[in-house]
Amino acid sequence: MADMPKINVKQAELKRISIGALERLGIEGGDAEAVADVLVMADLMGIHTHGVTRILSYGERIKIEGINAKPNITVRQAYPTVATLDGDNAIGPLLGSRALFKSMEMASEFGVGMVFVNGSNHFGPIMPYSFMAAEKGFMSFIASNATTTIAPYGGTLPKLGNNPLGFGFPNPKGEHFLLDMALSTVARAKIRAARDRQESIPLDWATDANGVPTNNPNEALSGMLQTIGGYKGYGLALAVDMLAGVLSGAAYLNHVKAWDKHPDQPQNLGHFFLTINTKGLGEADWLGERMADFSNIIRDTPAIDEGSPVQLPGERELKAYRYHVKNGLDYDAQQLGALQAP
Amino acid sequence: MADMPKINVKQAELKRISIGALERLGIEGGDAEAVADVLVMADLMGIHTHGVTRILSYGERIKIEGINAKPNITVRQAYPTVATLDGDNAIGPLLGSRALFKSMEMASEFGVGMVFVNGSNHFGPIMPYSFMAAEKGFMSFIASNATTTIAPYGGTLPKLGNNPLGFGFPNPKGEHFLLDMALSTVARAKIRAARDRQESIPLDWATDANGVPTNNPNEALSGMLQTIGGYKGYGLALAVDMLAGVLSGAAYLNHVKAWDKHPDQPQNLGHFFLTINTKGLGEADWLGERMADFSNIIRDTPAIDEGSPVQLPGERELKAYRYHVKNGLDYDAQQLGALQAP
Repeated sequence: MADMPKINVKQAELKRISIGALERLGIEGGDAEAVADVLVMADLMGIHTHGVTRILSYGERIKIEGINAKPNITVRQAYPTVATLDGDNAIGPLLGSRALFKSMEMASEFGVGMVFVNGSNHFGPIMPYSFMAAEKGFMSFIASNATTTIAPYGGTLPKLGNNPLGFGFPNPKGEHFLLDMALSTVARAKIRAARDRQESIPLDWATDANGVPTNNPNEALSGMLQTIGGYKGYGLALAVDMLAGVLSGAAYLNHVKAWDKHPDQPQNLGHFFLTINTKGLGEADWLGERMADFSNIIRDTPAIDEGSPVQLPGERELKAYRYHVKNGLDYDAQQLGALQAP
Repeated sequence: MADMPKINVKQAELKRISIGALERLGIEGGDAEAVADVLVMADLMGIHTHGVTRILSYGERIKIEGINAKPNITVRQAYPTVATLDGDNAIGPLLGSRALFKSMEMASEFGVGMVFVNGSNHFGPIMPYSFMAAEKGFMSFIASNATTTIAPYGGTLPKLGNNPLGFGFPNPKGEHFLLDMALSTVARAKIRAARDRQESIPLDWATDANGVPTNNPNEALSGMLQTIGGYKGYGLALAVDMLAGVLSGAAYLNHVKAWDKHPDQPQNLGHFFLTINTKGLGEADWLGERMADFSNIIRDTPAIDEGSPVQLPGERELKAYRYHVKNGLDYDAQQLGALQAP
């Protein structure tokens, strides 16, 4: 990968290329821009696994009608502060973006806004949404269900997804607090890396295909992931699915279709978006001072390893984001080319 | 402990005894009942560490004015759906109960209700609150900060609490989904049990006093707890403190006073209560069917160990609760006596 030629591309240029690629897939102007905003921000944050190259895999599904390029997205307003988006199998980040802005619109008026989404697909990483909310002064709690890769605690079959959840807290006077995490001990990529290095893995990372914890990365890759803290992470993954799947009207647990096995079929993924307008809770100075004090207390903790200072969630991604907005991003030339192919 | 004489006591009797004990501490009628409801339910659920015997330790602090028996609790209404309770150092479960009912009141009208609490103390376990909400058809997300016992990930000093969080989802046609968990890998009680058995402990349970992971339960007991999934549980514990501490106006991180070290001083603990009125999201049959299907999918998973079937969060506690409501609870006679001492 290190040998691949790179091209320095600025944020605006990467966005223009992404919008072009999405428009060629039949996604129209404003919708293409909303999707590009999420995926470009993921790349700028260094979250390349969820960046603009996802347009290529979304595109493959759009071409076989597994994702709907021209959806009829409808909004049901259960309460002044609670809405459900019926996504009509639209591209995930479009629904994520719509849900976020709808939620903030309600929170602007009522303090809190909550949006459930059904009929969706993979919506990208959570951190770009939390960042957009934080920039406007909104706290956010965002979650999604996902394709089934994890067994219930003590069980032997995959029944739940590695469901991501994220919390964002705005700092009106400094850097935001952004947590974006899934509920497995590690991502599959770390298991693949251990296999490539021919190393064994800790027993709490994964199980074999029968649900038995394993040290062997090959067995793990044909098996299932384990959740953080065993039954605790299992409980949290279920709670996320209750919010994002059960209450939203989407599929849940193994009703969620695997996009890699059935790329031509709707997944009916579900998401959950909650935002709070922090402006009504106190003055910007009040919140800014508390956020700064909070950060300082954490950062001032002496580290076990002097070379690895204590960090706050999102710190690394926000540094990468600020740097890349200023200096552009060194992007894989071949992937950029693929995005620009007619 | 097995030799201690037990007395079978019914729910109503345990509540009457608890109200009496609270009234003798100067907590008045309705307030004493609200506190008793939470703590009695904890005992009925089998969560005895957070049951009515807590009245004895709360009482010690009330007697030295570390907790305020006659608080002036005030409500600030930031938005129609968002309120902050200034707790005036009241007994924790009273503030928890007030916050829960205030949240449900707002959610009844607007769909969502959110209450921040400051100036509080230990509010008991979360599950009784989630249960009360679920019985009335409300989803709940409840969290609290806590006395400092955990170091930031990679750090060497305790800066954050083992913050509990809980999710409750009502099943209008069957049993509710109730998750109540803290963010450490295990509770300190498990480390004490290992020490008493002279066993070593896994490396991800705790650190020594310098923040270095340890197998030695004695070192662990003078050290700090570790969070589930390392930096992931750390991130979640911080997010809970942001909600319950920073946004509520309470103390956060090591600003929270330790009740065992400074029993005569206000802790200024903070809590967070969110409820959603699920009635507006769909018919009771719709939700009941989805909840039943969800449970069935999980329960039908073959277990690794046939003797340990796959369970849902709260299942054990709800079974205990139903059983004890019907059959009464075999309670430690000496503790019951202490609660009835003038």
